[in-house]
Amino acid sequence: MTTIRPAMSSDIALMYSLVRALAEYEREPHSVKITEEQLLRDGFGPNPYYECLIAEEDGQAAGFALYFPIYSTWQGPSLHLEDLFVLPKFRGKGIGKALLNHVAAAASRRGCARLQWDVLDWNQPAIDFYNSIGAIMLPDWRRMRMTGDAIKALAAATEVSA
Amino acid sequence: MTTIRPAMSSDIALMYSLVRALAEYEREPHSVKITEEQLLRDGFGPNPYYECLIAEEDGQAAGFALYFPIYSTWQGPSLHLEDLFVLPKFRGKGIGKALLNHVAAAASRRGCARLQWDVLDWNQPAIDFYNSIGAIMLPDWRRMRMTGDAIKALAAATEVSA
Repeated sequence: MTTIRPAMSSDIALMYSLVRALAEYEREPHSVKITEEQLLRDGFGPNPYYECLIAEEDGQAAGFALYFPIYSTWQGPSLHLEDLFVLPKFRGKGIGKALLNHVAAAASRRGCARLQWDVLDWNQPAIDFYNSIGAIMLPDWRRMRMTGDAIKALAAATEVSA
Repeated sequence: MTTIRPAMSSDIALMYSLVRALAEYEREPHSVKITEEQLLRDGFGPNPYYECLIAEEDGQAAGFALYFPIYSTWQGPSLHLEDLFVLPKFRGKGIGKALLNHVAAAASRRGCARLQWDVLDWNQPAIDFYNSIGAIMLPDWRRMRMTGDAIKALAAATEVSA
């Protein structure tokens, strides 16, 4: 039987292992710079950055969903699903769908206008599944990202312009 | 002279007009469902959903940038730039760049690992500009979105599975 429950601070080691498992699945294990301590501080402090759901199958940890509030200046408060992952050996049991059900329930309770997440454009099985549950792809939009030194260099210009 | 300053609650009418001007520029004026009251409540209450910067050119409102915190389970707290807009008659003066400088400064002060935003894939001048300031495009990722009734329908399944 599948159970979905909110993650607690005592789940941090489990959450960290699931984050790492997802990164390994995406063949990017080296990209995980976060630590258990930071995950704990950021998710379970006074102003948490994220919320997390844990899926269990007959009492065994099987997957997780991690999301946080975002904002649309056209439609108001919305929810972004950052991670959705089911361990390979627990697939085909509807656990991913059950996690999505609960994320949608969280969005619905808060009156969110939109629930969104990102998908790799070559992951057609995932895209087909997401379409089947009522999500649409926004084909024209691309993500731009800036990190580390580029942020600092851009920020440094305010010392002149401010 | 260009000045960048944080928006205050007394700027709501101005912010709303800039949100509308951006939507008209994108030829989607009908997509703006938000009201001034909601923008005020969501941005200036005890747990604000967003922060906003206003650009002024010789004392006249010229543009805005609106952003909020997000979270990366690989790198930690990050910043998402939702809207960046300069009114057409104020373009070519470096106002967009000045706004971006200040958004990067906000990201830097908070120790954000990433600063991100979205761009339309046909907007090559914007992409070239963003590349020139150190941002990179993530070509493989696509946004999935679910709204209104689809969220409710997906959420309803928790009544059975929970």
